[in-house]
Amino acid sequence: MTETTAPTQATTTTPAIVPEGATALVEKHRDALTAATAALEARSFHSRYNESPSPKVHGEDAAPNGLKAHEAHLGQKFSALESQPSTGQWVGSEKSPYGPELGASYPQLDVDAAMAAATTAQKAWRNAGPEARAAVCVEIIDRINARGFEMAQAVMHTSGQPFVMAFQAGGPHAQDRALEAVTVALAEQRKVPESVIWEKPAKGEPIRMQKDYRVIGRGVGLVIGCNTFPTWNAYPGIFASLATGNPVVVKPHPQAVLPLAITVEVAREVLAEAGFDAALVQLAPEETGGTLAKDLALHPAVKIIDYTGGPGFGHWLETEAAAAGKLVYTEKAGLNTVIVDSVETMRAATGNLAFSFSLYSGQMCTAPQNVYVKASGISTDEGELTAEEFAEKLGQTITAFNKDDAKAVEILGATVNDDVRGRANDFTGLASRLGGTPVLEPREVEHPAFPEAVVRTPGIILLESDQRDAYSQECFGPVVFVIKTDSTEQSLRIATDTIQEHGAMTMAVYSTDEEVLADAREAAADAGVALSENLQGQVFVNQTAAFSDFHGTGANPAANAAYADAAFISNRFRVVTTRRHV
Amino acid sequence: MTETTAPTQATTTTPAIVPEGATALVEKHRDALTAATAALEARSFHSRYNESPSPKVHGEDAAPNGLKAHEAHLGQKFSALESQPSTGQWVGSEKSPYGPELGASYPQLDVDAAMAAATTAQKAWRNAGPEARAAVCVEIIDRINARGFEMAQAVMHTSGQPFVMAFQAGGPHAQDRALEAVTVALAEQRKVPESVIWEKPAKGEPIRMQKDYRVIGRGVGLVIGCNTFPTWNAYPGIFASLATGNPVVVKPHPQAVLPLAITVEVAREVLAEAGFDAALVQLAPEETGGTLAKDLALHPAVKIIDYTGGPGFGHWLETEAAAAGKLVYTEKAGLNTVIVDSVETMRAATGNLAFSFSLYSGQMCTAPQNVYVKASGISTDEGELTAEEFAEKLGQTITAFNKDDAKAVEILGATVNDDVRGRANDFTGLASRLGGTPVLEPREVEHPAFPEAVVRTPGIILLESDQRDAYSQECFGPVVFVIKTDSTEQSLRIATDTIQEHGAMTMAVYSTDEEVLADAREAAADAGVALSENLQGQVFVNQTAAFSDFHGTGANPAANAAYADAAFISNRFRVVTTRRHV
Repeated sequence: MTETTAPTQATTTTPAIVPEGATALVEKHRDALTAATAALEARSFHSRYNESPSPKVHGEDAAPNGLKAHEAHLGQKFSALESQPSTGQWVGSEKSPYGPELGASYPQLDVDAAMAAATTAQKAWRNAGPEARAAVCVEIIDRINARGFEMAQAVMHTSGQPFVMAFQAGGPHAQDRALEAVTVALAEQRKVPESVIWEKPAKGEPIRMQKDYRVIGRGVGLVIGCNTFPTWNAYPGIFASLATGNPVVVKPHPQAVLPLAITVEVAREVLAEAGFDAALVQLAPEETGGTLAKDLALHPAVKIIDYTGGPGFGHWLETEAAAAGKLVYTEKAGLNTVIVDSVETMRAATGNLAFSFSLYSGQMCTAPQNVYVKASGISTDEGELTAEEFAEKLGQTITAFNKDDAKAVEILGATVNDDVRGRANDFTGLASRLGGTPVLEPREVEHPAFPEAVVRTPGIILLESDQRDAYSQECFGPVVFVIKTDSTEQSLRIATDTIQEHGAMTMAVYSTDEEVLADAREAAADAGVALSENLQGQVFVNQTAAFSDFHGTGANPAANAAYADAAFISNRFRVVTTRRHV
Repeated sequence: MTETTAPTQATTTTPAIVPEGATALVEKHRDALTAATAALEARSFHSRYNESPSPKVHGEDAAPNGLKAHEAHLGQKFSALESQPSTGQWVGSEKSPYGPELGASYPQLDVDAAMAAATTAQKAWRNAGPEARAAVCVEIIDRINARGFEMAQAVMHTSGQPFVMAFQAGGPHAQDRALEAVTVALAEQRKVPESVIWEKPAKGEPIRMQKDYRVIGRGVGLVIGCNTFPTWNAYPGIFASLATGNPVVVKPHPQAVLPLAITVEVAREVLAEAGFDAALVQLAPEETGGTLAKDLALHPAVKIIDYTGGPGFGHWLETEAAAAGKLVYTEKAGLNTVIVDSVETMRAATGNLAFSFSLYSGQMCTAPQNVYVKASGISTDEGELTAEEFAEKLGQTITAFNKDDAKAVEILGATVNDDVRGRANDFTGLASRLGGTPVLEPREVEHPAFPEAVVRTPGIILLESDQRDAYSQECFGPVVFVIKTDSTEQSLRIATDTIQEHGAMTMAVYSTDEEVLADAREAAADAGVALSENLQGQVFVNQTAAFSDFHGTGANPAANAAYADAAFISNRFRVVTTRRHV
């Protein structure tokens, strides 16, 4: 017996209560959300925010005005957040990886008062419904975008990213990921109708009920930011939680507060204008060495945690915070992997890889590290190459790519912390401790504008396949391992094993053999990692596109979530049904 | 800048590999899945499996043949599962709540061998893709349906449910929930296209990439069944995990193995016929008192756990197993709540409630327990009634409803364990320990066919609103609390607080005042519980309909998940992308 009744028009008994300001935003952003929703379904190219920092796009004044706005923060209290519940203390310890102390300070959050305010604010946000929340979120993102050059400076001088990257990854690319999270959130909430008539056939009259479905948030969403991508990695969590009806407390990395302070300022401004309580988004800054993240994570009001950062604290969240009943979404670190089986065009392949290794000095969670090359030799357009020869040629390409200091710093950026600097500065020591052979030493690069910046080109260490301990650790920063294997089959097996055990955000393969590519796809599926095949052009393994590429898979230890799939969103809200006979 | 490219036709590099047997099932069940998908989107009435046990539907022989099939299991080895990896031991300790020992025994699983077999089997299941998996699942459910009367006997004699309920809740209703899980799983997987062409505008030629998306399971799904609803509560987890590409190990309650043994037998049969490895579904039986559930939960191969049962072990799973990285979906217990503000038709309202209290002796996770009535009096068609008078009238209705033993047992069923029996047998002692006043004593009912069955009608205890300790505990079984409050406002406040703290699967409200109903909806949203308004007919608060009602919300401590929303499904699989230039 199959019986299905058609949906019948019903009027919900719990209609959305949308403030006037938000109603206007629903109209304003309807088309934007329609376009984004279509792109998400098609997983096609979609970008709402122009990635070019060119004056042709933004006008001649945009960049200098952004710099001016940035400079106005330096050495100052960030007073735009004074309306938050505060202990009265101002905190701040940011120092640019390019040298200067930022000297900005931020109001220290009174955590209990902030959580109470957030919880009170949640109710009207819940009752406004998914459409209003999505529209308010788009307005927030648009307004963040309007401060693009100020944000670029803030990201550059906290993360150490080069300027253009800070503009793009810290701005439009982060904003596109934010919009993606809002779009997935809206799609997930729309799946549940507001109201239906349910009609069950029965003897005589059918049984008819009206059922209303209402989306409710879970509680406060805590977003713990990282030093290297303060906005890009925080926005998916912030906007996923907010769009699904949850207030958000943003806990920035102590060395990367400013980009998120600006973000929170804009969010509070828009929320208040739209008729909501600004307490829906709050900043929880602290100075280096604090334990605020842990305290916040275990606060009873916090129900959702998004985290990007080191595996140590990530693991604590995945165990202790998860055991305390929090929903925990992490992105940690892993052994990003390249398999080299054969190469169509050495110049293009090594050029592509050299860029991936050099970009932001390998300080991306997606930057490749472990390059497996079969020792017996790979077939290339430059002849059969041994693993050593391949490593040499890769080294030459990296050297040539970074030969001009002034140009190199615009790719390499600055090293972000002493840990990274230590490995780059004592590269010979590192190679010797690992039992490997240095093929290419990192080169000291002088930054023409910021002499204090520590800038290093990538170095290469050659390892044998049986030195698994050496290449099973993440060496964050400009360190590349070329690992000699017996065969591509062995390369794939080791890659799968190490990724299953230690995680990876990315995997790349170079092969001219379709069978090897098919094997690589199977290995990627087994390891649970995204695969890029034969990148030789202007797409790089460490870059993913919002609305199309998932960032992470959630299927290996590097991350338990992906930007942005249904699993990243759908548990951030629940559905409450009310039903009555009609 | 808004740019969206239309999706372009692409051919995946990782096509599904579907065995011939499964291809036939995809054709066979296409319409069934289309209809189910439409119903899910509309949340309209949908049932694939006829809930009537009438011979007019199934033929005269179906019931006696089912009984015969059931009797053939008694005292016998369940040899259909002999093909599972086994320790060589046979285990079994089931005793019917109606009296007789079942005497059936089941092959004890060799856990490590079983996990290895499951993991090996997973790959072909993954590579078959979502459509083939869904079709195979529908075939399994259809074949379980074909053994409906045998299953009814198995459910009745393990849970103590009355026959018709065992037929319906253990059969068609459970099967509809299974189909719902398969349908949600298919919809979630279909959201990600198999392959797209992504085209980014660039200077000159656009950048074009083919991206293939592949769904991969997480690992073994462990489903831990309960005593009272062995199939209904296990099927959502079993089919959610299976349909998303995960092998499943089913660990039944030691007193309710048979219904799940039959289920696993059918699943293995269908899987093998469809060209897959039967190790994708395995049964892990044990005798009463074992610790197998804990051992299985912590097995490294297990990645997903579905659990229904007591809060103690549920909490252990939510803390310890969650900390070990398992995805944990629980349904435990709570304080199901009724708010009585005013009543349109006392006869109909108390009749509806009497059925809800009596059905299966209140041994449903959705059965109401706490009835809040304002002491000052409620307005009804039988005049203004004090809380005491309401309790008296409710008691009279319950007594009248169950006055005939032979008819009463067909609603009450049998008490399932000593815990339930203890409360029913020493009801005066229970009332006195709680500090309440007994309004109605449970009555001993003699089962005409099964003299050993312990059958009791519901009893009522009157409590004051300040006796919160008393009514903040779940008294599973035929126990009703009527709680006197100062006002409906207080009723709603206490209900919200206790549900936020202790959880609830259901809430009902009786009021003729639309403002009170609106307040109740707000309270339900705050408490995160589903609300039924003014049930006076043939829909009961303890029953939910697949495809339309969510079972549980996941928003209060009674359950961290709901049957069956996207949150219940979408994290059981991950997506691996491969991309290449085209």
